[in-house]
Amino acid sequence: MGVESPAARSTKGDLTRQRIIEKAAGVFNRRGFAGASLSELMEATGLEKGGIYRHFESKQELAEAAFDYAWEAVSAPRQRGLEEQKSSLDKLLLLVRNFVGEPPRTLSGGCPLLNTAVDSDDGNPVLRNKARAALSGWRTRIADLVRSGQRNGELLKTIDPDSVAVVMIAALEGAVMMSGLEKTREPQHIVGRHLEEYLLGLRARSKG
Amino acid sequence: MGVESPAARSTKGDLTRQRIIEKAAGVFNRRGFAGASLSELMEATGLEKGGIYRHFESKQELAEAAFDYAWEAVSAPRQRGLEEQKSSLDKLLLLVRNFVGEPPRTLSGGCPLLNTAVDSDDGNPVLRNKARAALSGWRTRIADLVRSGQRNGELLKTIDPDSVAVVMIAALEGAVMMSGLEKTREPQHIVGRHLEEYLLGLRARSKG
Repeated sequence: MGVESPAARSTKGDLTRQRIIEKAAGVFNRRGFAGASLSELMEATGLEKGGIYRHFESKQELAEAAFDYAWEAVSAPRQRGLEEQKSSLDKLLLLVRNFVGEPPRTLSGGCPLLNTAVDSDDGNPVLRNKARAALSGWRTRIADLVRSGQRNGELLKTIDPDSVAVVMIAALEGAVMMSGLEKTREPQHIVGRHLEEYLLGLRARSKG
Repeated sequence: MGVESPAARSTKGDLTRQRIIEKAAGVFNRRGFAGASLSELMEATGLEKGGIYRHFESKQELAEAAFDYAWEAVSAPRQRGLEEQKSSLDKLLLLVRNFVGEPPRTLSGGCPLLNTAVDSDDGNPVLRNKARAALSGWRTRIADLVRSGQRNGELLKTIDPDSVAVVMIAALEGAVMMSGLEKTREPQHIVGRHLEEYLLGLRARSKG
């Protein structure tokens, strides 16, 4: 076992850093920023305090990296199969089905957007800004799909693309809250069916 | 100034207890259970630790009383004017309008159901049960209104009353999350218009 090169040390450090982020993400997502204790973070990562904070300047820095990881972890499965859909309407319907389908196993504690929005509403401006940017990006992606469907004549020109995005996101996130509280996915399935009918009702009449 | 009777002492104690609950409700609603610190509770109530805990056995007991108060504080304005509406549909429409209208000034920090559901999803079973009961009661009240509208021929017999309740609550609560994050009531207004259209679409055809 020779002396590690600086590059190898850096790679190993990066891997440890990434592993800390992944494990901490579940703790922050379940507990919130204030509620995530050092002892829980140590237990989840299997590291001592010094082992964690060798890679992060502060709990704040770790929480920020954990949010980015968590949002990516839940967002990726929601986009699954979207590229294979030809029509904008089918893409919108698939977004709903992906969301209300099986939860991603990569993260415990529910939707990190909902959790961070509610947790950071008083006192953590950086996490709050991250959640706001995540929401804004989600709104934009849905509104763009609607606009594209309007351009190609699939969807009614009279609907407001951003309003469609707001209705979809509000209903889906509210259903996550209900499902989390009731420990059943029933609310998500009900909302999924509602949004499916809603989206089908936005079809341009000529395509009806 | 004579010696206070036991009854007078009790009344004064009750008043102090009630004032602590009211002030603490805002702190718990903004900060969550773990995030609500003793110093914040002391600042909000204007009392020392001993002054607060003379009336409550624990932070847990205070948080439970605060949730009950908070839920009542937001629920009452949502029911405003309901009795004056003759039709079930008008009652449902008014529920939506009350919700998305001006927020009650009685409580800071947004909807206590949303906050408690998200905050307590790991670790506080009593608060969680309180939030679950609040959600369940809300679902029942809306579903009962729909059933009543079906019985009197206003609303389609084919709709599932509980599904209407889930759609309304999910969309409204999701909009609260979005509005809280974006610091604008626009999402609530968009969702309000969506639910209005949705409810109007549930009218029995003969009443068309």
